[in-house]
Amino acid sequence: MLKICFSQIEVEPGHPDLNFSKMLQAINEAKANNADIIIFPEMVIPGYLLGDTWEQTSYLKDCLSYGEDIIAQSNDICIIFGNIAVDWQKKNTDGRVRKYNALYAAYQGKLIQPEKSPYPFAIKTLFPNYREFDDSRYFYSLQSLADELDTSVDDLLSPMKVNIKGQELNLGCILCEDGWSDDYNFSPIDILCKNYKLDMLINISASPYTFGKNNKRHRVFSKQAKDNQVPLIYVNNIGIQNNGKTIYTFDGSSTVYDKNGNIIACCPAYSGKNNYINLNSNEDYTPLPIPQNDDISNIYQALSYGIKKFLKDIHMKKVVIGISGGIDSAVASALYVNIIGKDNVTLINMPSKFNSETTKGLSSQLAHNLGCQYAIVPIQEVVDFTVNQFEHTDVVDLTTQNVNHLTISSFVKENIQARDRSARILAGMSAAIGGGFTCNANKAETTVGYSTLYGDQSGFLAALADLWKHQVYDLARYLNKEVYKREVIPQGIIDIIPSAELSAEQDVDAGKGDPIKYPYHDYLFRSFVESWQKVTPEDILTWYSENTLEEHIGCEKGLVAKYFSTAKEFIADLERWWNLFTGMAIAKRIQAPPILAISRRAYGFDHRESQNGAYYTRAYKQLKAKLLGETA
Amino acid sequence: MLKICFSQIEVEPGHPDLNFSKMLQAINEAKANNADIIIFPEMVIPGYLLGDTWEQTSYLKDCLSYGEDIIAQSNDICIIFGNIAVDWQKKNTDGRVRKYNALYAAYQGKLIQPEKSPYPFAIKTLFPNYREFDDSRYFYSLQSLADELDTSVDDLLSPMKVNIKGQELNLGCILCEDGWSDDYNFSPIDILCKNYKLDMLINISASPYTFGKNNKRHRVFSKQAKDNQVPLIYVNNIGIQNNGKTIYTFDGSSTVYDKNGNIIACCPAYSGKNNYINLNSNEDYTPLPIPQNDDISNIYQALSYGIKKFLKDIHMKKVVIGISGGIDSAVASALYVNIIGKDNVTLINMPSKFNSETTKGLSSQLAHNLGCQYAIVPIQEVVDFTVNQFEHTDVVDLTTQNVNHLTISSFVKENIQARDRSARILAGMSAAIGGGFTCNANKAETTVGYSTLYGDQSGFLAALADLWKHQVYDLARYLNKEVYKREVIPQGIIDIIPSAELSAEQDVDAGKGDPIKYPYHDYLFRSFVESWQKVTPEDILTWYSENTLEEHIGCEKGLVAKYFSTAKEFIADLERWWNLFTGMAIAKRIQAPPILAISRRAYGFDHRESQNGAYYTRAYKQLKAKLLGETA
Repeated sequence: MLKICFSQIEVEPGHPDLNFSKMLQAINEAKANNADIIIFPEMVIPGYLLGDTWEQTSYLKDCLSYGEDIIAQSNDICIIFGNIAVDWQKKNTDGRVRKYNALYAAYQGKLIQPEKSPYPFAIKTLFPNYREFDDSRYFYSLQSLADELDTSVDDLLSPMKVNIKGQELNLGCILCEDGWSDDYNFSPIDILCKNYKLDMLINISASPYTFGKNNKRHRVFSKQAKDNQVPLIYVNNIGIQNNGKTIYTFDGSSTVYDKNGNIIACCPAYSGKNNYINLNSNEDYTPLPIPQNDDISNIYQALSYGIKKFLKDIHMKKVVIGISGGIDSAVASALYVNIIGKDNVTLINMPSKFNSETTKGLSSQLAHNLGCQYAIVPIQEVVDFTVNQFEHTDVVDLTTQNVNHLTISSFVKENIQARDRSARILAGMSAAIGGGFTCNANKAETTVGYSTLYGDQSGFLAALADLWKHQVYDLARYLNKEVYKREVIPQGIIDIIPSAELSAEQDVDAGKGDPIKYPYHDYLFRSFVESWQKVTPEDILTWYSENTLEEHIGCEKGLVAKYFSTAKEFIADLERWWNLFTGMAIAKRIQAPPILAISRRAYGFDHRESQNGAYYTRAYKQLKAKLLGETA
Repeated sequence: MLKICFSQIEVEPGHPDLNFSKMLQAINEAKANNADIIIFPEMVIPGYLLGDTWEQTSYLKDCLSYGEDIIAQSNDICIIFGNIAVDWQKKNTDGRVRKYNALYAAYQGKLIQPEKSPYPFAIKTLFPNYREFDDSRYFYSLQSLADELDTSVDDLLSPMKVNIKGQELNLGCILCEDGWSDDYNFSPIDILCKNYKLDMLINISASPYTFGKNNKRHRVFSKQAKDNQVPLIYVNNIGIQNNGKTIYTFDGSSTVYDKNGNIIACCPAYSGKNNYINLNSNEDYTPLPIPQNDDISNIYQALSYGIKKFLKDIHMKKVVIGISGGIDSAVASALYVNIIGKDNVTLINMPSKFNSETTKGLSSQLAHNLGCQYAIVPIQEVVDFTVNQFEHTDVVDLTTQNVNHLTISSFVKENIQARDRSARILAGMSAAIGGGFTCNANKAETTVGYSTLYGDQSGFLAALADLWKHQVYDLARYLNKEVYKREVIPQGIIDIIPSAELSAEQDVDAGKGDPIKYPYHDYLFRSFVESWQKVTPEDILTWYSENTLEEHIGCEKGLVAKYFSTAKEFIADLERWWNLFTGMAIAKRIQAPPILAISRRAYGFDHRESQNGAYYTRAYKQLKAKLLGETA
């Protein structure tokens, strides 16, 4: 029987000194609890999502130096941890120094060398190069090392042997993606289990939270344990890490599976504590229930933790939120107040002549319900001044000396209002308060750029920009019912038609609102960005012509017929949004605030895109012509 | 003797239909000129930098379908071109369909299969995963295929055999990075030349322009031809391609080397035409001079082409530039006027009470010299209104009913001015004009975020943001002397101290200006971002303590002693900028406009970064303590 501590500490990416201190504390606690082994996550010293910090020699040396100090702590406890490993004599294929994403195991002050490895550490074999991951940019895989040494992974991959309390243990140690081998032509776990009799599998990970991912992980990892009849210990970190534009929460959710594939220990999500289990490789344990990870409570938990940690990391204590009486800003307000307290949140309503008494009233009601700081700052005077100033400015042609004057269209006026609210009032007032202002855009708006750059598209963080509009509503109901347990978000805000209220054409009292029909477009847009193979108008139009669109994109049945009476209308709508999604919206996303990722595909570094303009395939054009009874 | 056409067409990334049309035209011209072979660049049909468009099945099929149509054109001419290749039966390691970055060669309507390849196309072997490149994210390399098939690259890499005019030719066909193998453990060219007698090497590329890169390419490729005694044809595309945040120009500069490594044909940079050479593999040719690629004229050429093409691609015909009387906006003005004409450029001077008569005069002089559209739009009234509005707004605590009022600091007022100029005036007026406004930030400002978000940090394109301040001055002189051949940028603008003029502390007439000491900081900042192994304060302080800093970073001798009289002052300055570079400046860059890349490391997708806060290594802290005579 071994006492194993799995320590899903809150990793601070880019701060080896802080991570070292946390590890030291965890090790001391584990020692005091007589643990035999303590296991930390992947890249626990450097952090994982660091951008090109990996190119700083001094950073590499610093991480190695803290690693040495951890190894020195391994008297009477076996310490397993992730860190960078460097072979200063060799090169990566970019010509820079050779770097491995490594798992170190130390005992009695010494590193344990995997039986057949040329190095005293285990090397990550499989490299994720999808979504937010960039492993091949920085690290050299065990596969590449095998190629270089003219041998095979089979010949390099081997367990770490250690004798603890007289027990000779064979530890099968892998890193993160090594346990997700379905799409590779070999499986590191299979190789280890085929060639060796293991006492346990240890998977140290740095695995970001994604809605629903843990359910899949339980299936995959449970099967690995059961198939190989060996316990599996999965240790993930908590924290937030980012690639600039996209911020990921890491939920931990470290889990121990027994040899039957049953969950026998599981750390709560986002809890940065040591956890212990007494493990006997051959024992049959009473299974724990499988945690569920796919409802709005998980999204709430990820958002809450992510926002709180991000604010802490950027040392921001106060937040300003522009509230319109609409759902997005209301949900943002309820979230932030719950996280940093009503004293630290200032809600600002910024009416123009187009804002209805209805939404002004709802804004006030929201602010009162939350009991936070509240101000009303009208924009009409500056908007009028601006339009007047532009129209009366002499624009002189210095070649001909002709003097011209601008005319300001209704559309230009709409954007003047949006920018006045954000760039003049929210940016200025939040700076005066000593905080930042939020971007409340949802994912549907972000998809098609239904927002104004330097207007409602701005802010220090877009916390809701990975939630579709229907998820924002779910979250509103959840906040009222489960978090506040009272109606902080007025029902009127949930019921009112979404509208920007930037012109008389968007009069909410007349039932006029956004051009986005969320019950349909939420799902159409989702198919563009979140589908496994990304969906384009060619697919959409094919499904439309086959009458299978609703089931393919997952929206309610009957909506397509309800919204579009002809193929022509349907196509015009499709092209309108596709043109925006692949056109102006990309330009806006390039300058958008960082997004907190929730879904399996968030904008930013996760969904990479180029500003290339809209494109329609030949097959699309042919099908369109056919549907419209034209020649392509 | 073969007549070879190398066609460096202007590739439109994301638009296979347009590329197909251009190729067709080029092929017809080559046929009319009796060419035996026509060679197009890598990924000539789809484009190369497409982001995750590679995940659209319909896009892949579309590219393949246009590829088929090109193959059908190969009667009486051998057509070599780059395109995506798909094996629908296999998977990439991300689980998506198997994609190869492929070179196709077609003759008499049929594809030519490399002797030992399992496919009728050549597959890229070496994958760049540095800078802006992401090949491993999307494609499967010949190396990975060899691993999968349990064989070696040596056994798969083979020439394409074709009989043209009775000549049996062995074509060694590779793609881009395959010719840059110095940092890999094998060389595709060496393998081909070792195992086969080749008639020529063909390297099709999609290689973005980088200041100075062509000089290195000439050395590397010339040596390959000479060492193997075989002619080498390098075909690169022209155009611009982007990863969202970073826009690259592709200069073409396609080159033919004879078997002695001499340049015997070379296409002009950024010229999208067919070029022809009569090639005899064994002939000794008279060498052409090696084109030089490392002075300000090359930068000017890249900027001019890049801006012009970007404007065309986003259908922007008119541009508004805020001019301050400073160097950056003046250079931007002269550049844009030269590209789109004085009728399409509106310069706007936006004085506050802090702007001197000097800079207002210089602005006017610049506009008159250029003869473009000009307007003066003062900001003081709205700035004063805003400050007054903020100070008189009741901020009510809705729990206690306490009413608070904000006080607006001088720093907050500075940013209010900057945002008023950009988000209110430039954004509004450019929208009214039907165009966009430029971001004129240089690379030094961009490095440390010496700019205001939604203020001077905004715009549709940051064309100068990859130029250090000294390069902006070089460009100013070049524009006057070589482009306009008269003083369009007034000498006063070149001579005046750089200043933001946002407060009385920045009075240019009193010689007060930016806190950035460009002759030193340009080079310090460059070491942070452009060094091969990125430099950090640990390196800087080490060199400072060894008195070798100036030679390490490349600035003028004596500057360190001139600017800093003590180690304490030096360290305070270093930490000030490092804190900004790795702190607030990242937050600003996340929301910055796209940057036109020039240098070997541009901000954006090229230099990837995470918002993790400033970090100082243990070794830095120890050295600092030693220099300050303290204990660490």
